[in-house]
Amino acid sequence: MKLPKEGEAFGEWFNTVLEEAEILDKRYPVKGMNVWRPYGVRLLRAIDAVIREAVESRGYREVIFPTLIPETAFRKEEEHIRGFSSQVYWVTRGGETELDVKLVLRPTSETAMYPIFALWVKSHGDLPIKVYQIVNVFRYETKQTRPMLRVREIHFFEAHTAHESYEEAERQMLEHLETWREITHRLAIPYRIFRRPEWDKFAGAQYSLAADTILPSGRTLQIGTIHQYGQNFSRAFGIRFETREGGQDYAYQTTYGISERLLAAVIAIHGDERGMVLPPEVAPIKVVIVPIEKKGREEEVYGFCRGIKETLEREGIETVLDLRDYRPGWKYYYWELRGVPIRVEVGPAEVDSGRVVVTRRDTLRREEVPVEELVPRVRALLRDIQESLRERAWREFESKVREFEDLEGVAEHRGIAKVPWCGDDDCALAMQEETGKDLLGTPLEEEPVSGRCPVCGREAKTWAYLAKPY
Amino acid sequence: MKLPKEGEAFGEWFNTVLEEAEILDKRYPVKGMNVWRPYGVRLLRAIDAVIREAVESRGYREVIFPTLIPETAFRKEEEHIRGFSSQVYWVTRGGETELDVKLVLRPTSETAMYPIFALWVKSHGDLPIKVYQIVNVFRYETKQTRPMLRVREIHFFEAHTAHESYEEAERQMLEHLETWREITHRLAIPYRIFRRPEWDKFAGAQYSLAADTILPSGRTLQIGTIHQYGQNFSRAFGIRFETREGGQDYAYQTTYGISERLLAAVIAIHGDERGMVLPPEVAPIKVVIVPIEKKGREEEVYGFCRGIKETLEREGIETVLDLRDYRPGWKYYYWELRGVPIRVEVGPAEVDSGRVVVTRRDTLRREEVPVEELVPRVRALLRDIQESLRERAWREFESKVREFEDLEGVAEHRGIAKVPWCGDDDCALAMQEETGKDLLGTPLEEEPVSGRCPVCGREAKTWAYLAKPY
Repeated sequence: MKLPKEGEAFGEWFNTVLEEAEILDKRYPVKGMNVWRPYGVRLLRAIDAVIREAVESRGYREVIFPTLIPETAFRKEEEHIRGFSSQVYWVTRGGETELDVKLVLRPTSETAMYPIFALWVKSHGDLPIKVYQIVNVFRYETKQTRPMLRVREIHFFEAHTAHESYEEAERQMLEHLETWREITHRLAIPYRIFRRPEWDKFAGAQYSLAADTILPSGRTLQIGTIHQYGQNFSRAFGIRFETREGGQDYAYQTTYGISERLLAAVIAIHGDERGMVLPPEVAPIKVVIVPIEKKGREEEVYGFCRGIKETLEREGIETVLDLRDYRPGWKYYYWELRGVPIRVEVGPAEVDSGRVVVTRRDTLRREEVPVEELVPRVRALLRDIQESLRERAWREFESKVREFEDLEGVAEHRGIAKVPWCGDDDCALAMQEETGKDLLGTPLEEEPVSGRCPVCGREAKTWAYLAKPY
Repeated sequence: MKLPKEGEAFGEWFNTVLEEAEILDKRYPVKGMNVWRPYGVRLLRAIDAVIREAVESRGYREVIFPTLIPETAFRKEEEHIRGFSSQVYWVTRGGETELDVKLVLRPTSETAMYPIFALWVKSHGDLPIKVYQIVNVFRYETKQTRPMLRVREIHFFEAHTAHESYEEAERQMLEHLETWREITHRLAIPYRIFRRPEWDKFAGAQYSLAADTILPSGRTLQIGTIHQYGQNFSRAFGIRFETREGGQDYAYQTTYGISERLLAAVIAIHGDERGMVLPPEVAPIKVVIVPIEKKGREEEVYGFCRGIKETLEREGIETVLDLRDYRPGWKYYYWELRGVPIRVEVGPAEVDSGRVVVTRRDTLRREEVPVEELVPRVRALLRDIQESLRERAWREFESKVREFEDLEGVAEHRGIAKVPWCGDDDCALAMQEETGKDLLGTPLEEEPVSGRCPVCGREAKTWAYLAKPY
């Protein structure tokens, strides 16, 4: 492929990459549900592994709760059911039997987990609970679906915690943010955390934090959410415990969610006109070796390539030697599209000189490397690619977060617009109306603010961050 | 725990282990659906990893197909729908909307995958397809449910292949059997492969092979199935391709399925009255170190323990150092129940002598090992435990497969009864009737047979293998 990625062109670019790099097949006969092809699964697993490492090392433990939730449990927390009832799938029949208690396909697992939490928690000694699962969740989306960005079956990480005090739950919120920093660092994904407006927080939450990034289209993508539930759910589900002082209290809960959108961000943000550019930390294949055949010297070249492959793999560097019967140019195209960070070319000249041609995917810069220096050079290049992707992505992100004095130009801005705001909901809703953008929220940490609210003219108390989200 | 495992006692033993070793929580409010607790998830993942390695190394590639299948696709293969329609869950509503096309929760993924296979396969060059997925499938079981043995949401490995000739599909059947041998070898699970009787083959298959093992109750458990579909599904779904000769043909297909029952077998077969005994190849924790505290020397002991842990982990041996505030005896019990293969005890005497006490889980035999020999000794013990679990399990299995001359004693036999059989379905059905057992099938490879069919008295042509399956 050779397609522009920025602005209007992004949608086509993204769909073309997903198809041509054989990540997803969108032809499954249910709207909003797609087939993950082998390379897509490998990418997904690589990201799952990064998430797992970040949370396991902090003591979160993996569980698997059932996919189906009885209606009785689902209806226990009022705001939650209001928020989700229009978008759940209902299982009403088993075989030929109408079910007595209908079941919902989990849209998220609060109502599956918390009846069991209530059994697990008796005393403060049973707290904290810190569990997570990586499962599929289901949303009957009525909006337009888009592969990986808005789908009806979602690959989903969800962590759920329960604590003996609000302060501890607040500290857990900070730990979630810390794991988030670690995960996005390894994926080289820039983001900003916002405190979601009241009318857009998670159904049942006390407050919600969300991480938004910016895709090349200029639209924002919410790629992670962290919620403080306080005692909203624990009261509804009876997660009660004996306190250290011998009294009774309801647990304080938080959650943390990440979906396959994070992979979408990795593909969208780092890619270029030739396809994906994967950060080495999550590239399932780090190096591809392409032999340049010459009649009569094939075996020599292949043998040399095999030696290189063995050397790299012995060092734990995942390497593919592409011996398929295609021309080298075709193979370059194939592996560039798939975002493999480093390509090594080996022909008879390289065999003779003992120097191979190494090309890095991000800049496409080529260099000659003596074969005995290949391992340290590959290591250095992988580090360098990782670092420079991260820097570039953050630079681009920051350049798209722009401060405005009033609403002029906000509607047209591709990215996040930062507008002085008095803090009143009505003024924010008016800003949304006038600009056609949504309020992502207010900054997590206080930022110095000056200027006046463009709606009411009063002095600004904070910033409104406005954008067009997916 | 301290419970007998054999015969009638098995059910209680098994449920107690699942609960006390914190593998499953059975209190989820939907019949036949359970919660996997962290240690259960680790066991499941360890078995998944064994399966993945076996199939990935043979070129099967992982995919993920949607959970929901449109009724239209589900109804395409007649026998299949007949076989499954009484046991599928139906999604009939999204939000408040009645769905135009109802969806089934996959009971298995033929009808999800094959419409897409039809798009992927155009020419013989697109074959073979060898894919697998590890997902949850759903069966609205009307029989009594039992944790891990018969559930309504099942953790499931399913491989699907498509080939250009029947011969190639037959060779694939052999490869499935080879991966099966590798997987069960690593889990130390004995089994026998049977060709399922006509009336008990997979809905839509030409023929089915199944691997059965014997649990301590004497009942058999089907832990793996391999099916030859021929062109049954490819004709229904239009998986057509241009042959090498330029003609058109339908693909030849096979599948291969393994469920969480394999984990049930590992727990049931190797366990003893104290709980689980895990084969080292799938034990998430290989060694537990228990400090024996003595007043005034705690720090010394802990330091020594930490040194051992570091040494073992540097060698890639997963080790837990249990520093919790409990008595050593309590910790022995705790880790024995969880099946950790090796325990190392360290008290002040061990610190002084530089020799630690090592106990293997399978025989509970204790020995003293000089600390500098610990790594090679642990390695040797792990190999030895693996090997001796496998031998013991096979020995027990073989002792429970008994040859009978006629039906006398078959009903009471705990295990698999081998009865001479004329080969007629009617006689097998009569044997089932009389003994209360099911025909598992006939042996995969011919076995010398003598004697007469106990029903019709004609000379036996093969063996009927009868048992009471879960």
